[in-house]
Amino acid sequence: MQKLPGFRDFYPNECAFRNYIFETWRRVARNYAFQEYDGPTLEPTDLYRKKSGEELKTQLFRFNDPGERDVCMRPEMTPTLTRLVAARERDFRKPIKWFSIAPFFRFEKAQRGRLREFYQINCDLIGDASPAADAELLALAVALFRAFGLTQSDFYVRLNNRELWARFLTDRGFPPERLSEFLAIVDKLERDEESTTAKKLGAFGLSLGELKQFLATPTDQLPGFEDLFRELRLRELEPFIQVDLTIVRGLDYYTGLVFEVFDRSRQNRALAGGGRYDGLIKTVSDGAVDLPAAGFAIGDVVLGNLIEEIESARAWAEAYCRAARLQAFVIVAAEERRPEALKLVEQLRSRGCATDYSLHPMKVGKQFQQAEALGAQYALVVGQEWPLLKMKRLADRVEETVSLPELTQKLGLSPAYVPHPYL
Amino acid sequence: MQKLPGFRDFYPNECAFRNYIFETWRRVARNYAFQEYDGPTLEPTDLYRKKSGEELKTQLFRFNDPGERDVCMRPEMTPTLTRLVAARERDFRKPIKWFSIAPFFRFEKAQRGRLREFYQINCDLIGDASPAADAELLALAVALFRAFGLTQSDFYVRLNNRELWARFLTDRGFPPERLSEFLAIVDKLERDEESTTAKKLGAFGLSLGELKQFLATPTDQLPGFEDLFRELRLRELEPFIQVDLTIVRGLDYYTGLVFEVFDRSRQNRALAGGGRYDGLIKTVSDGAVDLPAAGFAIGDVVLGNLIEEIESARAWAEAYCRAARLQAFVIVAAEERRPEALKLVEQLRSRGCATDYSLHPMKVGKQFQQAEALGAQYALVVGQEWPLLKMKRLADRVEETVSLPELTQKLGLSPAYVPHPYL
Repeated sequence: MQKLPGFRDFYPNECAFRNYIFETWRRVARNYAFQEYDGPTLEPTDLYRKKSGEELKTQLFRFNDPGERDVCMRPEMTPTLTRLVAARERDFRKPIKWFSIAPFFRFEKAQRGRLREFYQINCDLIGDASPAADAELLALAVALFRAFGLTQSDFYVRLNNRELWARFLTDRGFPPERLSEFLAIVDKLERDEESTTAKKLGAFGLSLGELKQFLATPTDQLPGFEDLFRELRLRELEPFIQVDLTIVRGLDYYTGLVFEVFDRSRQNRALAGGGRYDGLIKTVSDGAVDLPAAGFAIGDVVLGNLIEEIESARAWAEAYCRAARLQAFVIVAAEERRPEALKLVEQLRSRGCATDYSLHPMKVGKQFQQAEALGAQYALVVGQEWPLLKMKRLADRVEETVSLPELTQKLGLSPAYVPHPYL
Repeated sequence: MQKLPGFRDFYPNECAFRNYIFETWRRVARNYAFQEYDGPTLEPTDLYRKKSGEELKTQLFRFNDPGERDVCMRPEMTPTLTRLVAARERDFRKPIKWFSIAPFFRFEKAQRGRLREFYQINCDLIGDASPAADAELLALAVALFRAFGLTQSDFYVRLNNRELWARFLTDRGFPPERLSEFLAIVDKLERDEESTTAKKLGAFGLSLGELKQFLATPTDQLPGFEDLFRELRLRELEPFIQVDLTIVRGLDYYTGLVFEVFDRSRQNRALAGGGRYDGLIKTVSDGAVDLPAAGFAIGDVVLGNLIEEIESARAWAEAYCRAARLQAFVIVAAEERRPEALKLVEQLRSRGCATDYSLHPMKVGKQFQQAEALGAQYALVVGQEWPLLKMKRLADRVEETVSLPELTQKLGLSPAYVPHPYL
């Protein structure tokens, strides 16, 4: 029996790495005062049809459920988010700052950095259209990478404002309706041959040279970035951010700020992407709710690859996964003390200490081997000296004899069964 | 736009409650030295066909994917788990102690305690068939409820061993093949009218009286529980556990121990169910891997309902959710200090403190209101006294003037950008 192509099994090591990513995302988003939400894994297909009236993409996991409803496994979060906000926006103080961590499904050709089931953190700030809001969102985006030990030499944000291209076209006498056709050309700039681009631009009566000249405009001569960059400077985020007019994002609904995050080596796909979508909630809610909004998503696959590639980031991941493993392994050195050992095991566990032991009698040496194999921090030896016991730190084999109260103190144990020993 | 029936939206309050359940499950399972794993949300339908050769259930979200594969949104974890274990069992030390927290999908009539998308923690212990293994698993099951503040007056485990019924039938001359037909009668005992049960028993030439007499056997006269109960007594778990011969579990593949967890009031459906399935891995792996195993699952829906019903448990949940909210709200009392305030916000966030502020200039009173509304623990006022600031605990309005180093110490901040400030 095989799993489906493009889907993943998470054995304990891979699951610990995935949890490291999720727990780090969650912690950072909470620190930025974003609140977590979620929606169903399965949604009515109509929800995705509504979004800016676009054609349904072909890569959906779409089917009729046993009740003959046309349904989709969610390919992205934004439609669900706009549904949630439109339904209850009055219940929430603005700006609404929300995030979610969830799996998504797209039937794409499986390849490096792209899978059929993948996870994203989606972060959105709704109800504020100011540069301060854009900066707040960008600050979170940057922090979500720095929290993995990634630095400004590892990643950067490529940022643009679609209005610059709108003005570029207007200045040359084109009507606004042609913007999305034009942005499709810009979007493909990096992948297309120059001759292909030149041919496409021909349809607009524009030359490649004219385009290149505009692309090379120095940042300080581009209008509309002053307020944003003042906000970013106050947060010391400038080293992470670069204006890049080629970034336009593929989707029609973006209205202002757009950005993507890349690793500096540019060996990987985009790590994140997002932007401002001020008209979308109105569209999806059929005009019932009109709120400006901006958001972005980071996927787990490309980020995971980057963490593996950057040595310091990989070391942080390993340290985290190690610390989340076993704290104590209780060794029964005298079988007649097994009852006391079992009670100790239960006590430790109920007081927040991850503890294991051998289910069956076993030589002491074997039990130590088991403790080492499981990555326990301490071996606690219950033997003839009970109620004293030997506490051995396995990393450096430092050993001491301790009483139970001393053990409690050394392991930093909380009282048994409290609401949240880790908070 | 509506969500699908039987599916849930998780607005921030509901999502915080869901996270409380997941984080508590994860912490307790880790404390019991179980390691987390996961598999795909979508699996080939054949995976579910293999399991004990049973008929496919009708309530599957089953369809052909765009590549014409017959696939199912996973309705349960055990088939995925057995696939993972069978593929790589040599890589893992026995006993394998694993858990997962994941969503499942069943097309059932939506009703109280039963939804079409729900979450379960699945815990399994593989490679050990002893009563010590059964006790280890039961200890985890009990701890997974106690960790929510539920006590022995709130819930209990109803426990049985299928071999008792096997012997009951053998003693009366029936062949082993008729066991599952017979267990189906026992399984329905609580829901069927006595006359219906009597009629069904007639097919076995047995009387209702004979059955009732066996059901009433005192626990200490039932064979096979001695070792298990000695193990449970050592862990002080007896008050949580009751032998109940009517518990047999619906599924064919259980071989020995079976149990279900109920609330004492019996107002809700089963909170959890599980048992020993020593032959299943062999069946699913076509004989390639033969390992004894036992496991159980707890769903989030019935548990969530019970937590809401039991006042002390609800209080624990609320305390947890409150503590996970905002720690600090930075108030800009003098606009010329906004740059310093923004730097402080970023500093606090990068050092593990959940912090918010007003994106725009606002009267100080309004900012305090916002801090209260967001549930912040502290308001930090940046004004003329900078670099001193006012720190006000919002719960009791105690206020003091602090320097930045003092603030760092009082909030218990970690250094900026460390791998895991919370570990």
